[in-house]
Amino acid sequence: MAEKVTPRSEDYSRWYTDIILQAKLADYSPVKGAMVIRPNGYAIWELIQSNLDKMFKETGHVNAYFPLLIPESFMNKEAEHVEGFSPECAVVTIGGGQELEEKLYIRPTSETIIWSMYKKWIMSYRDLPLLINQWANVIRWELRTRLFLRTSEFLWQEGHTAHATFEEAEEETVKILKVYQRFAEDFLAIPVIPGKKSDSEKFAGALHTYSIEAMMQDRKALQAGTSHNLGQNFAKAFDVQFQDQNGKLQYVWATSWGVSTRLIGALIMAHSDDRGLVLPPKMAHRPVVIIPIWRGDEKKAVMDFADGVFQELKAHYPVIFDDREQYKPGYKFSEWELQGIPIRLEIGPRDVAKNSLVLVRRDTMQKQFVERKGILYTVTETLDRMQEEMLQKAKEFREANSFRIDDYAAFKKQIEGEGGFVYSHWCGDAQCEARIKEDTKATIRNIPFDQEKEEGQCIVCGKKSTGRVIFAKAY
Amino acid sequence: MAEKVTPRSEDYSRWYTDIILQAKLADYSPVKGAMVIRPNGYAIWELIQSNLDKMFKETGHVNAYFPLLIPESFMNKEAEHVEGFSPECAVVTIGGGQELEEKLYIRPTSETIIWSMYKKWIMSYRDLPLLINQWANVIRWELRTRLFLRTSEFLWQEGHTAHATFEEAEEETVKILKVYQRFAEDFLAIPVIPGKKSDSEKFAGALHTYSIEAMMQDRKALQAGTSHNLGQNFAKAFDVQFQDQNGKLQYVWATSWGVSTRLIGALIMAHSDDRGLVLPPKMAHRPVVIIPIWRGDEKKAVMDFADGVFQELKAHYPVIFDDREQYKPGYKFSEWELQGIPIRLEIGPRDVAKNSLVLVRRDTMQKQFVERKGILYTVTETLDRMQEEMLQKAKEFREANSFRIDDYAAFKKQIEGEGGFVYSHWCGDAQCEARIKEDTKATIRNIPFDQEKEEGQCIVCGKKSTGRVIFAKAY
Repeated sequence: MAEKVTPRSEDYSRWYTDIILQAKLADYSPVKGAMVIRPNGYAIWELIQSNLDKMFKETGHVNAYFPLLIPESFMNKEAEHVEGFSPECAVVTIGGGQELEEKLYIRPTSETIIWSMYKKWIMSYRDLPLLINQWANVIRWELRTRLFLRTSEFLWQEGHTAHATFEEAEEETVKILKVYQRFAEDFLAIPVIPGKKSDSEKFAGALHTYSIEAMMQDRKALQAGTSHNLGQNFAKAFDVQFQDQNGKLQYVWATSWGVSTRLIGALIMAHSDDRGLVLPPKMAHRPVVIIPIWRGDEKKAVMDFADGVFQELKAHYPVIFDDREQYKPGYKFSEWELQGIPIRLEIGPRDVAKNSLVLVRRDTMQKQFVERKGILYTVTETLDRMQEEMLQKAKEFREANSFRIDDYAAFKKQIEGEGGFVYSHWCGDAQCEARIKEDTKATIRNIPFDQEKEEGQCIVCGKKSTGRVIFAKAY
Repeated sequence: MAEKVTPRSEDYSRWYTDIILQAKLADYSPVKGAMVIRPNGYAIWELIQSNLDKMFKETGHVNAYFPLLIPESFMNKEAEHVEGFSPECAVVTIGGGQELEEKLYIRPTSETIIWSMYKKWIMSYRDLPLLINQWANVIRWELRTRLFLRTSEFLWQEGHTAHATFEEAEEETVKILKVYQRFAEDFLAIPVIPGKKSDSEKFAGALHTYSIEAMMQDRKALQAGTSHNLGQNFAKAFDVQFQDQNGKLQYVWATSWGVSTRLIGALIMAHSDDRGLVLPPKMAHRPVVIIPIWRGDEKKAVMDFADGVFQELKAHYPVIFDDREQYKPGYKFSEWELQGIPIRLEIGPRDVAKNSLVLVRRDTMQKQFVERKGILYTVTETLDRMQEEMLQKAKEFREANSFRIDDYAAFKKQIEGEGGFVYSHWCGDAQCEARIKEDTKATIRNIPFDQEKEEGQCIVCGKKSTGRVIFAKAY
């Protein structure tokens, strides 16, 4: 608590790291590229897990667990896949004191091991669809890491489904992207744009990839979730065929989709301020802190009153009752602000006399006097409103930083200057895309689902285009 | 469903594997020693996780996540620990395409990596106790594996706590063992005996280890959970000291404790029968199946009635409504019996006429006619009773197969014959313990907490003993 969070305006990147370390969300580990997720950070992950898991189950998915280690020969079965992932793998060569005959890769993703099992499980159309999700750790070797956003090991969920037709697989791919969008907006209070990735940005081994893209406070984009239509690529690599209703053998159609602990990074960057973390209420495992304030013989009256409030609220919310006597109120305020507790209730002798309390909202830092009577209702209503307003605020920020640009000089100026989401025309050619990336480091975030039909000219080559795509620098 | 479960009496070990494969709880994977936990098995693990996690949180613990990979130098810091675990590790030597400078061990357990972090986090007595748990995968290389019971990779939770005094650490170690006992008995319906491990069976690096021991249907023992008082061994290895209230530096006291997916193996072996899995209701994610039975024009009446029952129950339980028309009732009965669904409700035209149903309890296979009215109450009450009676039955089985033996010839005859738990006197000498293991393969399961004080003579050497310990062959 002696340290101070670096202001965003001074150094955005240090601001981000300061919040994570000081709010004890995560810590650097002695293992290069790996982080430790501390209890305050893991509590956020638990809320992500439990809420998403419920949504997956409501859409008919079940969980399973597949092995961490994947034989090298499996990795090599799908050509694009091995090319994309092999170079960033951690590889086991010794087991039980012996050199292994075949190297084992720590999963960077589980398509190969899962499809080798699907070959055993899928025989007939009756076995389809197969809708399986896995919560797991994965490793993708990284040299330049950043807490939560890019670490060698991360936690995620990976869904892997098998279908009888392309259409069903496509429907699943989109359905899940919409689940992700709903989760990002309703729980994380982060507005996202769903759309399709360009070919050069798609998953290694997919027909095509959909993503949801969010804007951070530095106006950079963050890919918050992806959903892939894998076509028949993995079914062919692992020879997974099923007998259809006419008795004919067909290759199975596949999807995969995932979100990771990266979402915690998005959550921090989307909402926090120079005082520290700001959590939308649904992502706060402890949404309320009560701080009694008293001197000398005011103690009994204040503590009795505060305890009454505590008892009333704690039946409904995990409330922190901060009655530590060795710390001053100001110190406590800063500590819980840093940790992002959504609502602070201050109770002093004057509040007791007036039968009221002071309520401070973490997002706006707005202070208001509220009546003691109906405090549970007031807290619930405030949390609900806060959840909505945080989403609204993030939406307005994104709108204020989204631009339609038709001139490449202006485009470069925008990207290299203030940044933001730039909606520009693109001809569909990977070369133009590559040129922009080289010139500005911006990439096509996605081709939004709600892209308007509009005649235009590619911002690089001037060729015809039928709609705008989103360009931005990204995490 | 074409296959049949091998009867216990014919081949106990095949019976166990048949149930797992046919009820689709798990499957062999192409990676030696690793298994796939299929959705039916993973659903059991989710119930274990959610219920245990709640108990951990109620006792003040929080969750966190530490890296999968541990530098070799860390493994080497605690002498007994490295000796115990190093030989059974999987080792990463290549990362991101490069040979690594230092080998990385996939965690076989996380004491070393966690205590390297505790060194950063613990400064003063104010930072204690630190009560952290982790849900994770671990790898311990195994050549002779068995689904759920012994696999190279398994899922578990590992608690790692830090305390200011030996007494506090000891209290924590015992508290957690009691949590494990309560969980095993109240949820898994498996009675267990809590006690202390002999020195030769304790955890590598611990002062002492406590365990809970359960009896399986083949009368062998299964260690279902362990809790270790680690003393100051890891604090000294990682130089973790705290300033006490008098400003003096002291080494921190530690505990660690865990249960794993092995519990699913215990659950299967403790209760199942020749028809397949038998699940105690609290471990069944779908505790009820409704099977409508009709021919020709009976359909509408039966289906309407069955649907009414379904609607009434499903608000309270995840109920399976098996209205598949391509399968006969007998086939459905077998399938759900195999999968261990606790209650089957059969509804035929005669039941509709009498406004009643047939209820079959999976554990006893008892069939009874119950009234349609109050069906929710009947189901709830039956599930509760079943949960209790399964524990009671397992207790009686254990009592019937526990023996007090004072003669070594009789001891050997019992262990090598019928087996069971043999309570015998032991002088405390590791040599006598080793001799018994060599002669009979039986080990000391534990020295029970409720050991009676009784003068006796060691069953091997005849030296003085003050109480009996439990010997058994074990998984």
